[in-house]
Amino acid sequence: MTTTINTTTINTSITGDFLIGGAARTGEGDAIEAIDPSSGETLGPTFHYATTKDVQDATRLADEAFDTYRRTTSEARALFLESIADNIDALGDELIDRASAESGLSRVRLQGERGRTTGQLRLFASVLREGSWNGARIDPAQPDRKPAPRSDIRLRNIPLGPVVVFSASNFPLAFSVAGGDTASALAAGCPVIVKAHDAHLGTSELVGRAVSAAVVEHGLPSGVFSLIYGLGQTIGVELVTDPVVAAVGFTGSRGGGLALCRAAAGRDVPIPVYAEMSSINPVFLLPGALRESASELGAAFAASLTMGSGQFCTNPGLVFAVVGAELSEFLSAASTAIGLSTGAAMLTPGIAAAYASGQQALREHADVDSVATGQPGSCVFQGLPELLVTDAENFLADPSLHAEVFGATSLVVRCNDLDQLLGAVKGLEGQLTATVHAVPGDHASAEVLVEQLERTAGRILFNGWPTGVEVGHAMVHGGPFPATSDSRTTSVGSLAIDRFLRPVSYQDVPDALLPSAIADGNPEHIWRRVDGTLTQD
Amino acid sequence: MTTTINTTTINTSITGDFLIGGAARTGEGDAIEAIDPSSGETLGPTFHYATTKDVQDATRLADEAFDTYRRTTSEARALFLESIADNIDALGDELIDRASAESGLSRVRLQGERGRTTGQLRLFASVLREGSWNGARIDPAQPDRKPAPRSDIRLRNIPLGPVVVFSASNFPLAFSVAGGDTASALAAGCPVIVKAHDAHLGTSELVGRAVSAAVVEHGLPSGVFSLIYGLGQTIGVELVTDPVVAAVGFTGSRGGGLALCRAAAGRDVPIPVYAEMSSINPVFLLPGALRESASELGAAFAASLTMGSGQFCTNPGLVFAVVGAELSEFLSAASTAIGLSTGAAMLTPGIAAAYASGQQALREHADVDSVATGQPGSCVFQGLPELLVTDAENFLADPSLHAEVFGATSLVVRCNDLDQLLGAVKGLEGQLTATVHAVPGDHASAEVLVEQLERTAGRILFNGWPTGVEVGHAMVHGGPFPATSDSRTTSVGSLAIDRFLRPVSYQDVPDALLPSAIADGNPEHIWRRVDGTLTQD
Repeated sequence: MTTTINTTTINTSITGDFLIGGAARTGEGDAIEAIDPSSGETLGPTFHYATTKDVQDATRLADEAFDTYRRTTSEARALFLESIADNIDALGDELIDRASAESGLSRVRLQGERGRTTGQLRLFASVLREGSWNGARIDPAQPDRKPAPRSDIRLRNIPLGPVVVFSASNFPLAFSVAGGDTASALAAGCPVIVKAHDAHLGTSELVGRAVSAAVVEHGLPSGVFSLIYGLGQTIGVELVTDPVVAAVGFTGSRGGGLALCRAAAGRDVPIPVYAEMSSINPVFLLPGALRESASELGAAFAASLTMGSGQFCTNPGLVFAVVGAELSEFLSAASTAIGLSTGAAMLTPGIAAAYASGQQALREHADVDSVATGQPGSCVFQGLPELLVTDAENFLADPSLHAEVFGATSLVVRCNDLDQLLGAVKGLEGQLTATVHAVPGDHASAEVLVEQLERTAGRILFNGWPTGVEVGHAMVHGGPFPATSDSRTTSVGSLAIDRFLRPVSYQDVPDALLPSAIADGNPEHIWRRVDGTLTQD
Repeated sequence: MTTTINTTTINTSITGDFLIGGAARTGEGDAIEAIDPSSGETLGPTFHYATTKDVQDATRLADEAFDTYRRTTSEARALFLESIADNIDALGDELIDRASAESGLSRVRLQGERGRTTGQLRLFASVLREGSWNGARIDPAQPDRKPAPRSDIRLRNIPLGPVVVFSASNFPLAFSVAGGDTASALAAGCPVIVKAHDAHLGTSELVGRAVSAAVVEHGLPSGVFSLIYGLGQTIGVELVTDPVVAAVGFTGSRGGGLALCRAAAGRDVPIPVYAEMSSINPVFLLPGALRESASELGAAFAASLTMGSGQFCTNPGLVFAVVGAELSEFLSAASTAIGLSTGAAMLTPGIAAAYASGQQALREHADVDSVATGQPGSCVFQGLPELLVTDAENFLADPSLHAEVFGATSLVVRCNDLDQLLGAVKGLEGQLTATVHAVPGDHASAEVLVEQLERTAGRILFNGWPTGVEVGHAMVHGGPFPATSDSRTTSVGSLAIDRFLRPVSYQDVPDALLPSAIADGNPEHIWRRVDGTLTQD
């Protein structure tokens, strides 16, 4: 099957090839097949892992492409990103069907995720056109300054260099081949090499072909984009330790992320790794809120917990509340909903097995009681939602109760009183999100809580649920270790472009040689900081 | 002796004590004395290194201070920084005398450096008042959005936590106790623990007391500032690996910086280290510029090289030019100036010894010729300026010729032709600066050069010399590894505040609980990005 986009034709057959600088290549590494986790059946064709030679070719092409690509205009890169989005849209149902088969996620969910993915690409196009990403600053010369004249000094951001992106298992589109990391790195002017996730190989190939077609359409150097299949421990580490690679984006397990961080830190020239790893996303039910709507909160919590088989980085895996009748009511409503829920497909057999194992460890913990479990469904590789409870003393004393169980399992921590609840934050590791349920009568406690949560989480939300991460300008999808390896950034939203940039100063550089972002007369009409003051002049 | 500042009296006697949360404490570690490198004599009193207990007390106090300090207003921190500057000014000649005696640097230089130091503190006060440091962003709620409403999401930056600053040897004031790292970290809202440099212990105590007095004047928690003496390998590593510490600033040797990076990466919770380490600051003399003013360039180069005994991170340690009569003329002029120069005091006996050793290794290198040496002066621990030459083939083939020799030694690399000169950049490690001398006729070559230098250096300058780093908004004092451990930042200029901040999102947080930087109505009257658009409304 072929899809025609403008004048370019994308071959949308899934061949099992990966893409080195846009050229399809059949791997010579181990064979691997995609699996439908609902049916347990394999999905053709056979894919093959890449070899060291493939990695070297991809990085060499990325290096060769870098100088040309980084000097494209903001407008040129914006149009390129928009073409990628258009090409993904043009894949139509074939993409949705394949992604659904490979992931066990519903078509509706994947249609939404596709919109999020193309929306991200278009958001970064707007970021490029707005121009603040340049970080332009000009300190004009002061030839008459005493005791010494001041030079003309200007600053702008440039891209770091080729970026390796590791796809996530749980978002086959939005955190994968053309997901947030790829979009922000390409926007910054960095060539991208994606290490696809084994959980959605065919989806990756389809999207990879859409990206490669856009590279061709815009006449960009072929090395701007490559797509590779392989194991993180081998091909992944080879990519991260290649001297050409300048930065890494990763979404996945704590073990995987830390291994890449170690590999990057051990290089002759260390590079930044932006790894999003582990978060249990605590929810704090303050007494007033619980008193007002314990049942509604319980039902809404269960809905957030079980959505998408709980396979979200922001899944609410931990709930704190003060023991009492209201908490019992909350637990009762949540248990009812969870008891009525049905086990749904998990993304891969491996994820289903890890979930079952983590769930079992919690359930069998001497200080933990299981209060509700979902009903088995028809999928072969499924996860059953589960709700468990423990007491705050036990929770705070045992770090094993703080481990992420990736899936629809959550632990409710019963606190003796409000002080214990508020104090529990200090016992938590870094988190992507922290949620507070509070009514105005709770605000004095909430204020104390927020102050502590700022030091713990990347995003604090009130009276909602942490699943669902808006793509916008004010979003932080990040947070202190181990939620991420670098709390200074976000992987979602327009601020993510900063990950892949660094500042350079130009002192007394002749105007003819200055980049347009900091040239005289502001030819790009962007916001610039002149002598410390923001201006568009 | 005492100096009265407003209502506070700073005890400016140098006692040999360090300061744990403002309280003077006599160390129980090894004894150490300051040395006048000009005379070789020790300067009283005796100082003592800190112990593990001192480190623990300082970090505990910093941790306790953090929440209170970070919630001070921008204006409160601006006034605090200005008081530190005032207190340093009030130390008057005693500070200059002591710093000159300990460092061998001239009084005039140190008066200038004091102005730079207090100027930095006042610059960050203005940065705080301007408010963009908050990084405020607001994506207003869209309750009617389809298919799902959008929450109200806001973002602001918060400080990382307690910061450890390692003083530099070569700037007793501007890169030391109240130098750039301390100023930017305190501005960001981070408590600071300074590990003083052994090269200027008394100076450190005087400035530390000035900072501590300001802490008291402003009623801040005592743990906002501590000052400690000790060895980097022991006390330094203990500080960096303390769980309370959230970030590190360092200016010094490559070995020292890398050791701290390793220590930080090996923590249970890794933290960022901003280490400025090693740079040889290449200078490229393009043919037209050399033709027009070879002699003037040679004399100006020698002046930049020998200033301050060459003890600058931005010292021009490497010069590239095409072989020929003009280069001979440049070398002749530079050699004459260097031959007439006199060896001046180096900062410490250890630095003088390391300089002599590096100088000797270069001089004795089979492929290097020494063409000029300065005259011995009267100082006991001095360094003699030296100019050496080699050919490009030799330079590119031998990494030992790329090593920094900290002091007034520079290597001129003779290139066969312009292509070889332009190609040499790719053989260089990361640099703080790169300098191009060019006339309009050189601009075609300069354009090629600049494109490569952007990937190599933090600052590119034309027709000047890299020594002298302006403190402003557009300065980058940073650059790719090994110039620094993190090319994404600068250690000089207002952008440095970003090192110590991280973003946090607030979703549907009630206005009463929102930080003022992102509250409704913009009570701080700062620039904010609302739905992606910068506004002061």
